[in-house]
Amino acid sequence: MSRLTARLLISCPDGSGIIAAVAGFVADHSGNILEADQHSDPRHGEFYMRVEIDCAGFALAEDSFAEAWAPIAARFDMRWRVYWGDHAKRMAIFVTRESHCLSDLLWRWRTGELRVQIPLVISNHDELREIVESCSVPFHHVPISGEGKTGQETHVLSLLRDANVDFLVLARYMQVLTPTFVRTYLDRIINIHHSFLPAFAGPKPYHQAYERGVKIIGATSHYVTDDLDQGPIIAQDTLAVDHRDTVEDLVRKGRDLERVVLARAVRYHVEDKILVSNNKTVVFK
Amino acid sequence: MSRLTARLLISCPDGSGIIAAVAGFVADHSGNILEADQHSDPRHGEFYMRVEIDCAGFALAEDSFAEAWAPIAARFDMRWRVYWGDHAKRMAIFVTRESHCLSDLLWRWRTGELRVQIPLVISNHDELREIVESCSVPFHHVPISGEGKTGQETHVLSLLRDANVDFLVLARYMQVLTPTFVRTYLDRIINIHHSFLPAFAGPKPYHQAYERGVKIIGATSHYVTDDLDQGPIIAQDTLAVDHRDTVEDLVRKGRDLERVVLARAVRYHVEDKILVSNNKTVVFK
Amino acid sequence: MSRLTARLLISCPDGSGIIAAVAGFVADHSGNILEADQHSDPRHGEFYMRVEIDCAGFALAEDSFAEAWAPIAARFDMRWRVYWGDHAKRMAIFVTRESHCLSDLLWRWRTGELRVQIPLVISNHDELREIVESCSVPFHHVPISGEGKTGQETHVLSLLRDANVDFLVLARYMQVLTPTFVRTYLDRIINIHHSFLPAFAGPKPYHQAYERGVKIIGATSHYVTDDLDQGPIIAQDTLAVDHRDTVEDLVRKGRDLERVVLARAVRYHVEDKILVSNNKTVVFK
Amino acid sequence: MSRLTARLLISCPDGSGIIAAVAGFVADHSGNILEADQHSDPRHGEFYMRVEIDCAGFALAEDSFAEAWAPIAARFDMRWRVYWGDHAKRMAIFVTRESHCLSDLLWRWRTGELRVQIPLVISNHDELREIVESCSVPFHHVPISGEGKTGQETHVLSLLRDANVDFLVLARYMQVLTPTFVRTYLDRIINIHHSFLPAFAGPKPYHQAYERGVKIIGATSHYVTDDLDQGPIIAQDTLAVDHRDTVEDLVRKGRDLERVVLARAVRYHVEDKILVSNNKTVVFK
Repeated sequence: MSRLTARLLISCPDGSGIIAAVAGFVADHSGNILEADQHSDPRHGEFYMRVEIDCAGFALAEDSFAEAWAPIAARFDMRWRVYWGDHAKRMAIFVTRESHCLSDLLWRWRTGELRVQIPLVISNHDELREIVESCSVPFHHVPISGEGKTGQETHVLSLLRDANVDFLVLARYMQVLTPTFVRTYLDRIINIHHSFLPAFAGPKPYHQAYERGVKIIGATSHYVTDDLDQGPIIAQDTLAVDHRDTVEDLVRKGRDLERVVLARAVRYHVEDKILVSNNKTVVFK
Repeated sequence: MSRLTARLLISCPDGSGIIAAVAGFVADHSGNILEADQHSDPRHGEFYMRVEIDCAGFALAEDSFAEAWAPIAARFDMRWRVYWGDHAKRMAIFVTRESHCLSDLLWRWRTGELRVQIPLVISNHDELREIVESCSVPFHHVPISGEGKTGQETHVLSLLRDANVDFLVLARYMQVLTPTFVRTYLDRIINIHHSFLPAFAGPKPYHQAYERGVKIIGATSHYVTDDLDQGPIIAQDTLAVDHRDTVEDLVRKGRDLERVVLARAVRYHVEDKILVSNNKTVVFK
Repeated sequence: MSRLTARLLISCPDGSGIIAAVAGFVADHSGNILEADQHSDPRHGEFYMRVEIDCAGFALAEDSFAEAWAPIAARFDMRWRVYWGDHAKRMAIFVTRESHCLSDLLWRWRTGELRVQIPLVISNHDELREIVESCSVPFHHVPISGEGKTGQETHVLSLLRDANVDFLVLARYMQVLTPTFVRTYLDRIINIHHSFLPAFAGPKPYHQAYERGVKIIGATSHYVTDDLDQGPIIAQDTLAVDHRDTVEDLVRKGRDLERVVLARAVRYHVEDKILVSNNKTVVFK
Repeated sequence: MSRLTARLLISCPDGSGIIAAVAGFVADHSGNILEADQHSDPRHGEFYMRVEIDCAGFALAEDSFAEAWAPIAARFDMRWRVYWGDHAKRMAIFVTRESHCLSDLLWRWRTGELRVQIPLVISNHDELREIVESCSVPFHHVPISGEGKTGQETHVLSLLRDANVDFLVLARYMQVLTPTFVRTYLDRIINIHHSFLPAFAGPKPYHQAYERGVKIIGATSHYVTDDLDQGPIIAQDTLAVDHRDTVEDLVRKGRDLERVVLARAVRYHVEDKILVSNNKTVVFK
């Protein structure tokens, strides 16, 4: 990521000649393709592509790209986005009381592993203020007061707008967002759920896992939709456990899984490697 | 497993002095403990123990053990079983049309890795007859005919009785067993389900997994109970997949997982390493 | 793999416009690209590409491709090969006494999972004859006799030539091949080594692993070169073990790993997904 | 770990009646065994045992245990240690410039997951001072000056003595310790090496892994001995990589592995679950 790149993400009906057209377009504008990935979904007849172009030498830039690109986009009926490499995405983190995912994201950000800006952290509780402020990141305690969730969300949304946020990470945020909120940041809210979804959706998944006597536990990172824990899955991982593990052991072991799975999903999002379609993700690793 | 051993499995209310009493009993009868494992479940106040005793030098044998042991069993209110090492368990395999788990179990049996006898294989279809008979194992095709499932099960149960079977393995047997059948072989019917339960219970789990867009698939081996795919889990494992995997790819990759997970569960059962309680297993690996 | 495809594998010095040229060439000849993967190795300045083209509609075929393609190959200084989909590769299996990898490959071949022909199995011992012949595959026992390895290899090479073999799988073949032999089938001999190379190269890796007290064991599949266990790695996997595992347990657990890792490597080779360069592999999964 | 326990670790020549004697001893002193694990190593004829005793009700305590226990220890020729639960071990952390393992250990300590005291952090560089001091832990910069390593180690040893340290963690400390130093804290210095040992011992393992083209990377935590990277292995884990991963990617992915593997090893040590013998570990998980 040291050199500047443009990342072009494309979805369109599957067909012939798409790769040739895209690669030809880049070549015609003196661009060098650093990475190209594509995927055809025969079930839905859809085609997905990600092209990473070296900005050095590329004849197009943020202000001239759209016009030059329009004929190809029209010809193949493409939905497309392009991200330019000099912009570090602005990430808001939402937390409640658990610190492990938050601390992990802050650590990755401070060491430069995760190339983002963190304009603010929002919480419905005040416990994690110190961790956040010790990193010189603004912490906003927005409790759910008498006026209920709507009032709180209105406040939160205005904070996000003011901070010009690109995407949200729910780092163990124990609140369900309203459909209005979700729509505002569709495919831009990343949640971590502490089970291998679709198993153990809903509250207390480690307790559910303990009661069921599973021999593996898991963690799932997904985009948030209106259906709780049903959004498009970005990343998952699992870990072996056995009868000796208490609920507390599952919680402890799960923390290591959660923070790694969440960080992986955030990284894919930040590097513009994810396309969402039909409630599933295409992740060009 | 080359030397003869007795495996003693114990469950009882938790309390002090149980290990001392058991180990003292073995020592008093000149026995040498080769392995001892125990587990306390604080939630249910239960204690579980497995002791493997070298038969060489042990003053007790199959006909004298129960009487000598009775006072200790009574003192701690134990449920217990003991298995003697010169008996290779008699395993019936149930199949439908898929061969991978069957072939794998037969291969492990032929090479001596799995120390069992296989008196018969039962199927509701005739496709796998050749694989079975080429190993000189009797194959019984018991279709579900006009008289329905009850008639078929009556026939199957009489075959199992005649063959003096110790336990059953459903190696991708696509039929639900009746409660009567399950009760007859309670905690002795091992099934392999092709998902990481409790996710994707029921039919076509790979199709369900594909539709949900999961990034891991799994396999689960469990004892069969009256509740479909809800019995005590013995072994589970998972495998990473991604958007490029079609349903057919999941099926193919899953086969490797299923046969290994099933073989692991069968091995634990054969070596008397499993205790069942509260719809969960304690597996002393 | 149900439809016929052509797989084009390319290596060349890295540069601009390669993808556009390749994709344009395919489009110009009415071809539809089903999959395209590419990789740039900045360290060596090399570019690798794999393109899978639907043969239906493609204006070129086995006899006309090379001439049409020549100008592009020349322009970018490409090494390239193309494989046509109606040819199932001819695979020779080499074994000694261990049956697990052999049985596994035969099973995958019989069920159609692995799309190859198996014209012969060669062994320096006679133990596995029955397994092979029961599948109606010719078994050749070619022992290392008084005249030594050279005589044996001469015999083996003539068998392979007569059988018109495309590639070789050493499925636990306990003999070192001579440089002459290796050169004849360079990048076409796949070996399975029972350790996570480069750890425990050479003989008895499980004994070495046991002595070292590792907490994981592994298996490695690689192309054979003149340096023992030093060839380009195709696939690897690992498994957790602990202090309770004897050498025999490692051997047993390792078998499950070996056959899966070997099968994976063979599959990649059969589907023309591997490029070899600088003693490493690019595997376009 | 909420209730106070005594952990008794035993090694002795294998024989009959050991478990009965130990369990009987505990019962005779009104102790309740919470966990008991044992292992026989037939290769070396050794027996290992760990017993965790609930201190509540136990008639013995730190000052009276040794005398009461002496006859049993003598009878079976035992090496043994006992750890009492009200003492949180004092852990010194050694670092150089990499922060990930340090930050991770500090985080586990602050949240109470890891029950230790951290009286000091020692480094041959000054970079990580702020991270450490922000947690109110003393940071000692002890560079290797003109007088060489011996002078530095003398200084370090006196710091450790003054701080009354129980064990040391080399959290990516890039210095080799002298035999004198190692002997002082034998089996009490835990190192993390960034490869799956014995592969890629020595410097720059990720570079070595990249050059070799492995498909998995790993991390190994072990006790330090005089032979570099050859000490008894406590914990290992691995992760899949492929041709797209640069050295930088391996370093990044490896960090997540290293901190988890190191934390696991430290936890085992802190909970007195490790016995060392014949340059291997028995870890009673």
